[in-house]
Amino acid sequence: MEFKAELNNRVDYIEKIISEFLPIEEGKQKLIFEAMNYSVLAGGKRLRPMIMMEVAKLFNNFGQEVKPFMVALEMIHTYSLVHDDLPEMDDDDYRRGRLTTHKKFGHAMGVLAGDALLNYAYEICAEAIIYSQDMHAAARAFEILAKRAGAYGMVGGQTVDVLSCDNELDRDTLDFIYKKKTSALLEAAMSIGAVLAGANEEQLVLVEKMGNKVGLAFQIQDDILDVIGNSEVIGKPVLSDEKNKKTTYVSLYGVEKSKEISKALMEEAIGILDFLGENEFLKQLFISLIDREK
Amino acid sequence: MEFKAELNNRVDYIEKIISEFLPIEEGKQKLIFEAMNYSVLAGGKRLRPMIMMEVAKLFNNFGQEVKPFMVALEMIHTYSLVHDDLPEMDDDDYRRGRLTTHKKFGHAMGVLAGDALLNYAYEICAEAIIYSQDMHAAARAFEILAKRAGAYGMVGGQTVDVLSCDNELDRDTLDFIYKKKTSALLEAAMSIGAVLAGANEEQLVLVEKMGNKVGLAFQIQDDILDVIGNSEVIGKPVLSDEKNKKTTYVSLYGVEKSKEISKALMEEAIGILDFLGENEFLKQLFISLIDREK
Repeated sequence: MEFKAELNNRVDYIEKIISEFLPIEEGKQKLIFEAMNYSVLAGGKRLRPMIMMEVAKLFNNFGQEVKPFMVALEMIHTYSLVHDDLPEMDDDDYRRGRLTTHKKFGHAMGVLAGDALLNYAYEICAEAIIYSQDMHAAARAFEILAKRAGAYGMVGGQTVDVLSCDNELDRDTLDFIYKKKTSALLEAAMSIGAVLAGANEEQLVLVEKMGNKVGLAFQIQDDILDVIGNSEVIGKPVLSDEKNKKTTYVSLYGVEKSKEISKALMEEAIGILDFLGENEFLKQLFISLIDREK
Repeated sequence: MEFKAELNNRVDYIEKIISEFLPIEEGKQKLIFEAMNYSVLAGGKRLRPMIMMEVAKLFNNFGQEVKPFMVALEMIHTYSLVHDDLPEMDDDDYRRGRLTTHKKFGHAMGVLAGDALLNYAYEICAEAIIYSQDMHAAARAFEILAKRAGAYGMVGGQTVDVLSCDNELDRDTLDFIYKKKTSALLEAAMSIGAVLAGANEEQLVLVEKMGNKVGLAFQIQDDILDVIGNSEVIGKPVLSDEKNKKTTYVSLYGVEKSKEISKALMEEAIGILDFLGENEFLKQLFISLIDREK
């Protein structure tokens, strides 16, 4: 329960930071701001900004400079969900128990709200760089974010995911999708936290490795939950992957073996974490990612 | 004819720069790179990068630093077209005589290619800032681009445009749409060119004003062409606005009066241009925008 309380405190703290950066709902284009805020305020675990903050703390240097990047990353994560839900993509009407953005605001606004959120993330980065005490570190954080979010990162993973629908995949391709689609932004969270906290190059290499392992373990846990999870808890129909004939770790290796792989990855990640420094909360957070029910 | 030859030279030059920045079509996510390149290489006037370059020349300082921003701006312009063509938006099958991106690569890829292009623009900006001789100027150029492209700029204009379909608009709302949807990126082109060339604050204010006027004049000329243009030349059905019951300058004021307004705006823009310095080609380019047939 101690961890749970600490977790909730951090979610509240992060949501306060996010709200400071949200656009005011005014002007002739008011609706786009409403759609953006509706999407960002849909709840969620705030996992990416939380990890960024905790990695900065791991290097004993969490300060003002990190906040805009926490928000920018969450905006990019949110835009990817908004566009994923569009009729052309997964065609989902609900997310976290609420109407998806395009269902609530209309299809065109679903496209535009996603575009606006992605772009807004970079508007925040631009200001962060200009007003930064350490412009070079801020520019590097921006570069990491942009590279991980785009066609060489998340969007690249989404592309292969879209292409692979209804096809059986080999492990190599599945890992590619997971690495890009899921790990890329988690890795960005960690690398940006480390860069802004002043980690050195060797540390950065290790942080990236840690991010990769956590991302993959997280995604495998998703596969497991899809099979054994409680539909009400995870918020999407259980067995949706099987219905979609999706290749997953579970379809390749079964539940037990997948659990083992996920656990082993997380142990490796925690090994790196322990080597880098001390952050007990972050360690608990990692463990919770493969113990979670949603 | 002299101007036409100079124009074509510049288009060739800009396309060469663009091609240096395009992603290589390789890797498991090859299709997204193909869709991005297909979209960017669809032709077009390359007006925005051209104006950026010419404004930098106006301040006697067009150099390497400007090139990545020329490409980034063109990527953002391109993404906006790709998403505009989607079924949720204008639902167009053809653009410039070729299949639109989502028609060619599938609907999901239309969404993702737009996202990837928008993001790629900022990947280019990030590198440009990090390797810049004048990091502050580059960061400011990035900020201008991001602000003009997003919900306070172009996307804001698209939002009001989408909302206004089938409604009669007043001049105020119409101007808002034109200012944001069309002028924002043209203004960004000019302001970025000026910032990177080292223009001072007073000059920047004038450049912004010039951008606004050129953008509005350009858009009014679009309205006029929609009524009197040759369908084959402008590449979209003539009278499409009327069919869509769109309020335009022509529907508000008629062709003749619209021509006058557009011409007056351009004369004001040229007045500012002459005050700022000498660039005969840029002046000719401005004039051609309201004399154009497409």
